[in-house]
Amino acid sequence: MFDYKLLSALAGVIEHGGFERAAVALGLSQSAVSQRIKLLEARIGQPVLVRAAPPAPTEVGRRLLNHVQQVRLLERDVQGQVPTLGDDKQPERLRVALNADSLATWWAGAVGGFCSEHQLLLDLLVEDQDVGLKRMRAGEVAACVCATERPVAGARSEPLGAMRYRPLATKPFLERWMPGGFSPQALAKAPALVFGPDDFLQHRYMAALGVSQVQVFHLCPSSEGFMRMAEAGAGWGLIPEMQAARLIAEGVLVELLPGYHSDVPLYWHHWRNGGQLLDALTRHLLREAAHALIAPVGVRSGPHNEQQRGV
Amino acid sequence: MFDYKLLSALAGVIEHGGFERAAVALGLSQSAVSQRIKLLEARIGQPVLVRAAPPAPTEVGRRLLNHVQQVRLLERDVQGQVPTLGDDKQPERLRVALNADSLATWWAGAVGGFCSEHQLLLDLLVEDQDVGLKRMRAGEVAACVCATERPVAGARSEPLGAMRYRPLATKPFLERWMPGGFSPQALAKAPALVFGPDDFLQHRYMAALGVSQVQVFHLCPSSEGFMRMAEAGAGWGLIPEMQAARLIAEGVLVELLPGYHSDVPLYWHHWRNGGQLLDALTRHLLREAAHALIAPVGVRSGPHNEQQRGV
Repeated sequence: MFDYKLLSALAGVIEHGGFERAAVALGLSQSAVSQRIKLLEARIGQPVLVRAAPPAPTEVGRRLLNHVQQVRLLERDVQGQVPTLGDDKQPERLRVALNADSLATWWAGAVGGFCSEHQLLLDLLVEDQDVGLKRMRAGEVAACVCATERPVAGARSEPLGAMRYRPLATKPFLERWMPGGFSPQALAKAPALVFGPDDFLQHRYMAALGVSQVQVFHLCPSSEGFMRMAEAGAGWGLIPEMQAARLIAEGVLVELLPGYHSDVPLYWHHWRNGGQLLDALTRHLLREAAHALIAPVGVRSGPHNEQQRGV
Repeated sequence: MFDYKLLSALAGVIEHGGFERAAVALGLSQSAVSQRIKLLEARIGQPVLVRAAPPAPTEVGRRLLNHVQQVRLLERDVQGQVPTLGDDKQPERLRVALNADSLATWWAGAVGGFCSEHQLLLDLLVEDQDVGLKRMRAGEVAACVCATERPVAGARSEPLGAMRYRPLATKPFLERWMPGGFSPQALAKAPALVFGPDDFLQHRYMAALGVSQVQVFHLCPSSEGFMRMAEAGAGWGLIPEMQAARLIAEGVLVELLPGYHSDVPLYWHHWRNGGQLLDALTRHLLREAAHALIAPVGVRSGPHNEQQRGV
């Protein structure tokens, strides 16, 4: 077995953002915390912390941190079965990687109530899907929302539904760049908005219209900033329908060509042995996502071709 | 002088997201583009591109890319003075690092019109201020919005104004965690929202109320996601007033203790030799920011203690 005194010291330093705070939280002296970290590093033969303010975990440190969090989840299940004296359950932490657009839109509404009810604290990481799944594989996160269906070893993947994206811009933008009405040639010259190097939604839209290149574009790696740039007339881009709903209803953003949309399927990847809390979160999330997202109707084929906004 | 044929090939591959597209844009064969990149790498003795899909610049590649973009800006000034035959000015690109909350709120409104009018395309990078300034110093970005006043060598810094943050949560959240009314003890147990390891706004607020530790918190590194988590009742946090204005007006989010706010000053760092377009953007931005942000009234002292939401 691992030495959980040492691992708890590591988790304490990271979760509380420093040796001094970790010491207070663990009821130890600061030098005791420091010694435990050193002993842990001596045993595994490499550093677990980058000594900065606040201290950050190394790659192996993140893996150990996630392991401690997983063990705590499993302990929590046992505590539920073994009567305890007090009722002051400590909140649990769960590390979850997800794409920027999910976090900016449906995620909080789907999990907020669950977090309150179950005293669950989330360490959220905004990652593109490759990085998110890599973190799953390395055991650095307990779960991940991404557009790839295939689970990594030891994990399950469940369809959440799809996010619908529509190509949107302001009316003045369209009048300026397409004074003679919509045409693929005009679209090719109008500045697009692109989230980052992994965002091919705009490229695919233009390719569907016969435009092979996206040459004129802003790079805007922020979900909210992306929509603000569209709203400010700086460019056009594919924006989650649910995010733009208000601006569409107000007539601020309009569709470039009515009727086109791109549905990006999302999957919930989670450990098989994540314990009851992660299982309960999974059930809750699947239920809530069914309300928030577009039902995944037989569009399961080819998820690996789907791209997602991430970084 | 550098060989700009080679540097243009590098810029083309990055800006167009691939060798094939760069070749089309530059009017070259794909192998010619590839050879120019190889020649460039042979000359400087290290790779400038990570061969992925799409290709990404290495650190030295980013520096060269930024240099090409700076040279293009300066060329544009010359073109403005030398009469040209055509009027089909190519749009210019500018790399700018800024903090997440600025990009999610006032940035697009302040620069969107300028981008359209001057055919300026932005490569935006969301960075915390240390990284943003490091990129300025390394010449990887042309400008940067951050909370530090002191400019790096070769750059100027100008005050933009301040973003006002207020501690906010939903009414049900406050009723649940503070049924007997607000108290520092109750606040210490209520889950907070923290943007990331560099976000000390919540810590400072609690410290001002005599609570020395922030132990119970979600980590949520997304400006919009942060507010969504507060809206969903998952936690309380300091949120930009301008971002939460609608939810405050609707009564969805309320102040924990009325009257407290934290003003984070923001500065615009830009190259001294950025050319007329960057100068014009600077003048425009200072004017627009004066409307969007809180006037910087004599709070110039100690900007280095101010923290900012970034990563």
